[in-house]
Amino acid sequence: MVIDKGLGKNSFMDLMETGSNYIDCVKFGFGTAPLYKTELLLYKINLAKQYGVTVMPGGTLLETAVLQDVVSEFFNTICNLGFNAIEVSDGTIELSRDQRTELIQEGIKNGLKVFTEYGKKISGSLIDAVVLADTLEVDLKAGAELLTIEARETGMGVGVFDEQGECRLNLLDDVLKFVTDTDKLIWEAPLKSQQVLFLNKFGPNANLGNISPGDILSLETLRRGLRQDTFTFGVRTKKEKEKEFFYVI
Amino acid sequence: MVIDKGLGKNSFMDLMETGSNYIDCVKFGFGTAPLYKTELLLYKINLAKQYGVTVMPGGTLLETAVLQDVVSEFFNTICNLGFNAIEVSDGTIELSRDQRTELIQEGIKNGLKVFTEYGKKISGSLIDAVVLADTLEVDLKAGAELLTIEARETGMGVGVFDEQGECRLNLLDDVLKFVTDTDKLIWEAPLKSQQVLFLNKFGPNANLGNISPGDILSLETLRRGLRQDTFTFGVRTKKEKEKEFFYVI
Amino acid sequence: MVIDKGLGKNSFMDLMETGSNYIDCVKFGFGTAPLYKTELLLYKINLAKQYGVTVMPGGTLLETAVLQDVVSEFFNTICNLGFNAIEVSDGTIELSRDQRTELIQEGIKNGLKVFTEYGKKISGSLIDAVVLADTLEVDLKAGAELLTIEARETGMGVGVFDEQGECRLNLLDDVLKFVTDTDKLIWEAPLKSQQVLFLNKFGPNANLGNISPGDILSLETLRRGLRQDTFTFGVRTKKEKEKEFFYVI
Repeated sequence: MVIDKGLGKNSFMDLMETGSNYIDCVKFGFGTAPLYKTELLLYKINLAKQYGVTVMPGGTLLETAVLQDVVSEFFNTICNLGFNAIEVSDGTIELSRDQRTELIQEGIKNGLKVFTEYGKKISGSLIDAVVLADTLEVDLKAGAELLTIEARETGMGVGVFDEQGECRLNLLDDVLKFVTDTDKLIWEAPLKSQQVLFLNKFGPNANLGNISPGDILSLETLRRGLRQDTFTFGVRTKKEKEKEFFYVI
Repeated sequence: MVIDKGLGKNSFMDLMETGSNYIDCVKFGFGTAPLYKTELLLYKINLAKQYGVTVMPGGTLLETAVLQDVVSEFFNTICNLGFNAIEVSDGTIELSRDQRTELIQEGIKNGLKVFTEYGKKISGSLIDAVVLADTLEVDLKAGAELLTIEARETGMGVGVFDEQGECRLNLLDDVLKFVTDTDKLIWEAPLKSQQVLFLNKFGPNANLGNISPGDILSLETLRRGLRQDTFTFGVRTKKEKEKEFFYVI
Repeated sequence: MVIDKGLGKNSFMDLMETGSNYIDCVKFGFGTAPLYKTELLLYKINLAKQYGVTVMPGGTLLETAVLQDVVSEFFNTICNLGFNAIEVSDGTIELSRDQRTELIQEGIKNGLKVFTEYGKKISGSLIDAVVLADTLEVDLKAGAELLTIEARETGMGVGVFDEQGECRLNLLDDVLKFVTDTDKLIWEAPLKSQQVLFLNKFGPNANLGNISPGDILSLETLRRGLRQDTFTFGVRTKKEKEKEFFYVI
């Protein structure tokens, strides 16, 4: 999952043409979606869908709609614009369990994929593995696709990361202890060191989020063992090199 | 005010198409302007003006001209190229008060908007609020539009920022004590934490400078309360949501 | 030498149009080359060559080929695609002196320019000036153009840089003591502070590598003294200002 903080037409075209094979979902981060001219916004949404990439506004936008009591207008507009997914989060506002489930179900009723998020955006917020495990279970039951672990755009100071973006490994171990469906998690991991950590912990296909558009190919080299940090991944797939390696025909 | 460190045609087109509603002025940072092929430079200048965005070379370029004693050539070339503003600064060289006033007036005589700058670029330089207040007054009297507080491209180690880019709050309090026209200041604030700080201190419409092209929409979400860090701004404008919020028609 | 981590068509066009006068070589970093659609990869390679810029895949890709025992397929594909240079490195794998020489000579036999690299990618690796001097001598004798000093994409934690990207000056002094042909070295220097350091140490024309595409014009301003950090360079060339300075005709 890529975070797009405001790419223009040419850059977005580049992103799709270069990276669409390696991207499942693009998020128009926080509340940026309303700031585009409508024509450009429609262009981006349609291009993503043409390339088979799921496209959603940032969770903060829905949180704003909840706070301003315009949730049904939110769904109307999102669907009219052609978004095919949303993020249901409570990074900034408080949502009761019932409100959260309603939003998930409302999304599904509108034909959207729903990604949920766990974690607060305020600096210093940690995660609680037991609550996370419970949230994941209930969200999935309500119809969510995957659950994202909040790390903000910077990867610092919230969730499993400390102020320097280093992982609090004990928190991650707790997650492994209490969460069984770890393949249903998306880890926000904007920093390379974080990407390497999660790929080592959860395997080369781990779901990662808040990836910067400029890092798509770099991340894919990490997944394939085509960079020093995960070079042994490549060794593991040596038997499959005919498929993996572009110059072996 | 955006700092452009060398965008090409496609990226600059993206910047204008996506961000021009949220940009007042674009600066071709430091001495980059002479490094473009003339055709490309003219293209960028004209495009900015078509989008209603003021466009100027970096202050360092004028400082170089002063040092090399080619100030009149500088003004000829800048005007011939179609720039409609300049920055008068002494971040690197020394300028007497009289020289500074002459440069401001020379700019105005040439039909240019003049932005001045206060502060040195050398690491460790602090600001003096009393001198700043005085400089602002004299610069405005000479015809300057606004005065920029130097923070470099990185936002670290000069002006009101320490080596880590944290604000020295006592210096900011001094500014508030001695400067009355704070709406005539542009704060160079390349880091998000700095943007949040100034918006909280001076309001959602505070003039910010040295904004990275990729951060235009992100900054606008901060101004509008569409991001966690300034979410309460959005709450304040709740009454105006019909105008503010794209999905409410 | 620029490191390209995955630019799309529009961005790469921008890079060439804006920066080609200031770029000798572009490297498609680590193992990103195989991740492009072939058409796009060919487009980029051809465009670079049209602009007179040497173009090569990252050294890690050849290291992967060595490890997977597909070196001859590597050379076939690289030449078929139109790359005109390679990097021979052992940042991740071990190469004997003989293997290294063979790879250099194999590159030359295939009509490619060969850049070699000294240094390991693993965090904490330092350089040994005596070994470096020896490697340079043997590499050049084998036909290499230049030798690059490893600093990774981040400029941190390897080679002459510590974990914060600060230069270990004693190591640099050792290099100056033992290496005579310092103009045959390319210093990977992604951070501005590192660029300033090398330009001051080895002169405004020092070979620098792993430069980010967005920093091309900024680096050129440093070389020409059009930025505060190396402003005195401009003063030194004052006599030549007619040639250097765009607005003096």
